[in-house]
Amino acid sequence: MNPRVLEISTSLIRRVSSLKRPSSIDLGLGEPSLMPNLAHFDAAMEFVREHGARYTPNAGDPELREMIARHYAYPGRGQAENVCVNVGSQEAMYAALLALLDPANDELLIVEPTFPSYAKMATLHGVTVRGVAMSESDDFAIDAERIADAMGERTRAIVLCSPCNPTGRAISADQAASLVRALERRGGEIALIHDEIYREQHFGERVDLARLYPQSIAINSLSKSNALTGLRLGWSIGPEAFIAQAIKVHAWIASCTDAFAQRVAMHVFASNAVEEHAGWYRARQPQIIAALRESGLRFIVPDGAFYACVRLPDGMDSLATALALAEERDVIAIPGIAFGACFEGWLRLSWVAPLDDFREGLARIATFRTAA
Amino acid sequence: MNPRVLEISTSLIRRVSSLKRPSSIDLGLGEPSLMPNLAHFDAAMEFVREHGARYTPNAGDPELREMIARHYAYPGRGQAENVCVNVGSQEAMYAALLALLDPANDELLIVEPTFPSYAKMATLHGVTVRGVAMSESDDFAIDAERIADAMGERTRAIVLCSPCNPTGRAISADQAASLVRALERRGGEIALIHDEIYREQHFGERVDLARLYPQSIAINSLSKSNALTGLRLGWSIGPEAFIAQAIKVHAWIASCTDAFAQRVAMHVFASNAVEEHAGWYRARQPQIIAALRESGLRFIVPDGAFYACVRLPDGMDSLATALALAEERDVIAIPGIAFGACFEGWLRLSWVAPLDDFREGLARIATFRTAA
Repeated sequence: MNPRVLEISTSLIRRVSSLKRPSSIDLGLGEPSLMPNLAHFDAAMEFVREHGARYTPNAGDPELREMIARHYAYPGRGQAENVCVNVGSQEAMYAALLALLDPANDELLIVEPTFPSYAKMATLHGVTVRGVAMSESDDFAIDAERIADAMGERTRAIVLCSPCNPTGRAISADQAASLVRALERRGGEIALIHDEIYREQHFGERVDLARLYPQSIAINSLSKSNALTGLRLGWSIGPEAFIAQAIKVHAWIASCTDAFAQRVAMHVFASNAVEEHAGWYRARQPQIIAALRESGLRFIVPDGAFYACVRLPDGMDSLATALALAEERDVIAIPGIAFGACFEGWLRLSWVAPLDDFREGLARIATFRTAA
Repeated sequence: MNPRVLEISTSLIRRVSSLKRPSSIDLGLGEPSLMPNLAHFDAAMEFVREHGARYTPNAGDPELREMIARHYAYPGRGQAENVCVNVGSQEAMYAALLALLDPANDELLIVEPTFPSYAKMATLHGVTVRGVAMSESDDFAIDAERIADAMGERTRAIVLCSPCNPTGRAISADQAASLVRALERRGGEIALIHDEIYREQHFGERVDLARLYPQSIAINSLSKSNALTGLRLGWSIGPEAFIAQAIKVHAWIASCTDAFAQRVAMHVFASNAVEEHAGWYRARQPQIIAALRESGLRFIVPDGAFYACVRLPDGMDSLATALALAEERDVIAIPGIAFGACFEGWLRLSWVAPLDDFREGLARIATFRTAA
């Protein structure tokens, strides 16, 4: 067996989520609770009835690649050749890291707190990984100076999830400009991978890093925007020279992305439906903030995504608390430690559950906190 | 950029296939020309209408895993825990190689001629790869003694595609028994990965290596059996300790396989339809052999799969010939060199095209041969 695979532990998120009972208030969910628009599926079915379900080119159907490129219209990235269609944003990230980073020489810098899989993917390939922690005192705002200070000589790529899973913080226009200046001082030798999977759940001014920095790669999918997590349809958008290498990796891994899913995606883009659920999240966010205020817990105001993070009292271990909450209070919440050491002491709560469930979950956490 | 990705060339198969014109006789196709049974899609649509398209567990829906395990009923591998549901057999192979092989110490042995992606996947991960060539004089029959002789001290896995792409040869019961004896002399330290993707297109006595050797891993998909290449639904079946590691790799790469595709697969297994197209191939094979005999070309009698391989006259380069055939005779055929040095001088012809097209393609190749 490969020791790199053996060594990496299974997911804390999955461990806590597995404690869910039918009665549980589930604030652990990392996926929308909305139903997808079935019109997209009907269109895909119509195609399959006529044409079956055959291989597409490795990089995806050229028409879909072009639709994606044109929809986002990132400068210098407006053509089909700038897009690789992947098995969700997860495989898009995997292919990007593999294509970009030389395990013998390069280092990946990850902005924390963050979803744990980026580091696991890189470690699996022997790439050195370093995290740069945002500051708790600043509610984990994305801080360009901290990122710039952490860039090492061997840093060749940075992964930034904005809006962020778990914190919900999004990079501001000022901080983005400052980050780009720092990257340009390095002569463009560092790729900036923007995981923009919560782009369509953004409540403030949207910052597309791909509009600001030529060596940036945008990764996204239909999972969160259109409640299609199970469909596994994502993509990367980047410079053509990068995409050509990412396609090779993608071809070896998966040959191509599911042709049925690609047809669903083509209908989403053709009907201009990428933001069809955005209004629901925008309407829900102030209600969530009100509920958080009522709870008395310290919380981070989310700029985007569908997570709210609350602080445990000092000294309370986030994993032990999450396990106890599941067992004793029937609430599923994800421990901060799953997202990096800097997020210890926090819990991530998803707010796609019914609002009353979210309020009840918060109340149980607040009581548990007092009782602890 | 990762030099391992930059170095690996793009596919010769894709290069030749890209020369196809609307008028071409296409004998290059690596996928069925039959239409899939739409009942499987209708069942998946019914599920999506009620439940949407949400994440499944990383390893796949437990019910599908169990259906697959029970259908094949390989000894000691009859439970859901023995199955990982993957993004086609391609990603199943990728995850298996990554989980099994330590790049620092282990070597992969590949039985040739063979589909080129196994070697590319392993090379990408820094795993040493060695090929063991079957003998042309024996029409590339799968020869256990040659494989056993090639096992090195560091060999930790062997990949064997049977029925074989490209040759169509399948391992015989005698040769399988002899191979297992050689593997057992090594104390079971070598995993035998049986790519059995053409299992349902097998015209002789079927040999399931997973019934004979405990350290074997069976990889398959619905792509060829049910004309669902575009669906990207495959799996690996193996010992639980292996599957547990393969699931980790799969989770990092893809999170899970498309939930819609999993529902299609559940209907295939629930309706016992894995062999629904097998009769078509069985009926076609003797007609193909008759056409090959008529052509006057030297050919290999296929035991399985849907390929027929023909020998070019000595001294004719397979790639140059394939390119010239496409340009001058409007026939797409895959050059043997794409499958390993030992297959230089041969062409792989797929026989899923209409029978008259296959005959006409053969006639053009035979003439070209005479003219060369």
